[in-house]
Amino acid sequence: MRKLLSSFIIFLIAFQLSAQNKIVVFQSDFGLKDGAVSAMKGVAAGVSGDLKLYDLTHEIPAYNIWEAAYRLQQTVPYWPAGTVFVSVIDPGVGTNRKSVVLKTNSGHFIVTPDNGTLTLVAESLGIAEIREIDEAVNRRKNSEGSYTFHGRDVYAYTGARLASGAISFEQVGPLLPKKVVSIPYQHAVLEGKKIKGNISILDIQFGNIWTNISDSLFKKLDPKFGDILHVIIYHNNKIIYQGDAPYSQTFGEVAKGSPLSYMNSLMHLSFALNMGSFADRYHISSGNDWSVEVSVTHKK
Amino acid sequence: MRKLLSSFIIFLIAFQLSAQNKIVVFQSDFGLKDGAVSAMKGVAAGVSGDLKLYDLTHEIPAYNIWEAAYRLQQTVPYWPAGTVFVSVIDPGVGTNRKSVVLKTNSGHFIVTPDNGTLTLVAESLGIAEIREIDEAVNRRKNSEGSYTFHGRDVYAYTGARLASGAISFEQVGPLLPKKVVSIPYQHAVLEGKKIKGNISILDIQFGNIWTNISDSLFKKLDPKFGDILHVIIYHNNKIIYQGDAPYSQTFGEVAKGSPLSYMNSLMHLSFALNMGSFADRYHISSGNDWSVEVSVTHKK
Amino acid sequence: MRKLLSSFIIFLIAFQLSAQNKIVVFQSDFGLKDGAVSAMKGVAAGVSGDLKLYDLTHEIPAYNIWEAAYRLQQTVPYWPAGTVFVSVIDPGVGTNRKSVVLKTNSGHFIVTPDNGTLTLVAESLGIAEIREIDEAVNRRKNSEGSYTFHGRDVYAYTGARLASGAISFEQVGPLLPKKVVSIPYQHAVLEGKKIKGNISILDIQFGNIWTNISDSLFKKLDPKFGDILHVIIYHNNKIIYQGDAPYSQTFGEVAKGSPLSYMNSLMHLSFALNMGSFADRYHISSGNDWSVEVSVTHKK
Repeated sequence: MRKLLSSFIIFLIAFQLSAQNKIVVFQSDFGLKDGAVSAMKGVAAGVSGDLKLYDLTHEIPAYNIWEAAYRLQQTVPYWPAGTVFVSVIDPGVGTNRKSVVLKTNSGHFIVTPDNGTLTLVAESLGIAEIREIDEAVNRRKNSEGSYTFHGRDVYAYTGARLASGAISFEQVGPLLPKKVVSIPYQHAVLEGKKIKGNISILDIQFGNIWTNISDSLFKKLDPKFGDILHVIIYHNNKIIYQGDAPYSQTFGEVAKGSPLSYMNSLMHLSFALNMGSFADRYHISSGNDWSVEVSVTHKK
Repeated sequence: MRKLLSSFIIFLIAFQLSAQNKIVVFQSDFGLKDGAVSAMKGVAAGVSGDLKLYDLTHEIPAYNIWEAAYRLQQTVPYWPAGTVFVSVIDPGVGTNRKSVVLKTNSGHFIVTPDNGTLTLVAESLGIAEIREIDEAVNRRKNSEGSYTFHGRDVYAYTGARLASGAISFEQVGPLLPKKVVSIPYQHAVLEGKKIKGNISILDIQFGNIWTNISDSLFKKLDPKFGDILHVIIYHNNKIIYQGDAPYSQTFGEVAKGSPLSYMNSLMHLSFALNMGSFADRYHISSGNDWSVEVSVTHKK
Repeated sequence: MRKLLSSFIIFLIAFQLSAQNKIVVFQSDFGLKDGAVSAMKGVAAGVSGDLKLYDLTHEIPAYNIWEAAYRLQQTVPYWPAGTVFVSVIDPGVGTNRKSVVLKTNSGHFIVTPDNGTLTLVAESLGIAEIREIDEAVNRRKNSEGSYTFHGRDVYAYTGARLASGAISFEQVGPLLPKKVVSIPYQHAVLEGKKIKGNISILDIQFGNIWTNISDSLFKKLDPKFGDILHVIIYHNNKIIYQGDAPYSQTFGEVAKGSPLSYMNSLMHLSFALNMGSFADRYHISSGNDWSVEVSVTHKK
């Protein structure tokens, strides 16, 4: 009997670790000026009063799937396992893109149209399983006549039902092959004494440039604080910026308005001006069509 | 005894259906740059730790009562019955406009100055009861000297007390006649082979034009996807736009930059450009002074 | 025994009054366009599923410590005692500014770099205790390599642990002397028949000017509604505006577009245009370098 009980407790703990945690986090390109986000949350709150509803961002530029992909990669790992993300950047609404739920190897769930939004999170967190939403059952009642607001009627509704435990992950719909629609981009690679990578995103509030070059890859150039980084930034294959940026531990190590390179809060190589906007001054943007090449000159 | 118990259970269920659900949803024209919204939520959180505090939007253009009215109509029905909305767009603060709580026939509560904000929701959801807030009792302690922030001291406080069950709806204050202050506008009507209506709102993130012409009214013109809609848009009585917009199931059915008409997520007739802003290109705005006239040419 | 029990109950009540209440309120200059705020909340949600996570604002202008200080003063008192604020405006990240938690005499907790952000709240609410965050223990696991996101790894994490009761206030770290880094500014003072003060902030949505002159100080000029206020506004020591503004109970008491003075929702003397922006028309801003001088002419 005691043995049975302890097995049961172990089962419960294991279940807890892989289960949904009643948190739903929303992302969209809807902005906060109208009622769209609130309607999604209202539908979720109506599914269960136990849910906690939070936001990633709703300021993804309209139709910008790359940025949506990046925001998920940036944010998902900081939420506890079991959190359900509902991401609605959906330029292809009404076309035959699939509506899916990805379960990552880290135990996070992402409810979204499979249109490239999952590119980065699938790579970095891994695909445990991916299921197609069966809209015949996982759709808000009486919403069948509406063609354009899958965010509310399918994604928010299904995300909330999954997060609350009203449905299991299996009940989302049929299992799909373990792959997602992927957007091509420059992966971070060491080539001789150079590292190539992608400009993943701008730290938009401050105009900093964030790459996909990780701390551990960058370490292969054996950088020390104070070393000079030579930086070349390309849009498609055209050079947009070329210059030197000392590798710095704090922004204050260079003069006001001067460029520097640093490891950002996600431990990726980044470029900034001390108290200024690198992106504005040099007209740099981000996305799968922006890339970067760096090499290091060690100080004596 | 058993009979008594089952009566009691029925009573409990009935009570649940009509009762507040501990959710408060805030709307205002305060924006999110200062502390006003947070102060309202702080007051609400201080009333009861059980409340869940959400937002409709705080980006209503300053003093724009029409848009506030529209956002409520757009959003309230998607929240569960019992939700309390606190809407503070209050150009007449300090004048003798009434502070009220509307209970709709759908079981939602709206706490607001009665200045036109309730125009649309009173029509679409119906008035169950409307009560004037008795500020002698329903006002944050020690706030009597403040003339300008009813949003925090009366509306958020009363909304939170109502949502938490600290007061019943009856305790809000005296019953008023079943009518609200109403803003005149072009109701959606069929006149011969034309439908007239109002431009309720812009889908501002994308520049789409949303009318108050419902799917069911529009069906009286017997539209099929691919039919041409002739659209005339008026500001007061002046024509601002005149053109053709194919009735489409998805935006991709017309060329990039071309106009189309479609049924939006609220099942109202709407106009858009595929991948562009109809509102910006043709200088269209929305409100009670904007109207529209549509007729259909069926494709062969 | 009964006596023991009632002592215990008194202890519990006293504990409740001074204890954390599971609410965390975030403020930053990150904006809402990227994932930074969401990552902070994710870390907090991972500390405890019982927390309620709200926002003050994330639209503090980049590096504007004065405005952060003002928003705290404006908002903190309206949240229940025990609320934990996490405020991250941190131009000095990576320098040797201290990371602290202030406990106010009102029982609120503020987690922040001690860089001036606490200037106003320390004055108005008083310092009960201030402790330096011991980052050796109060730091998210495996975040030691990251130099730039204290907001997430130290402040959000420590704030959430404090709010949830995972750590006591004592466990934050060592006690500091009862003083905070303070920004100099014009305190509100009566000098003969004039009152001098600071322009604390703009009511940015409406362009109104808010001073730090309290209702009780202003009363020493014996103002009556309808009296004329003579207003001189200085930037550093240069006059930027000089004019008359009738002391009004409601904005509608002056003509559209005319200036008026009034007591704002925080009971501080303020200036506005009826249905217009005082700040835009007269190029007024706010901060520790803006001051004001007022005198009164009583109406006959």
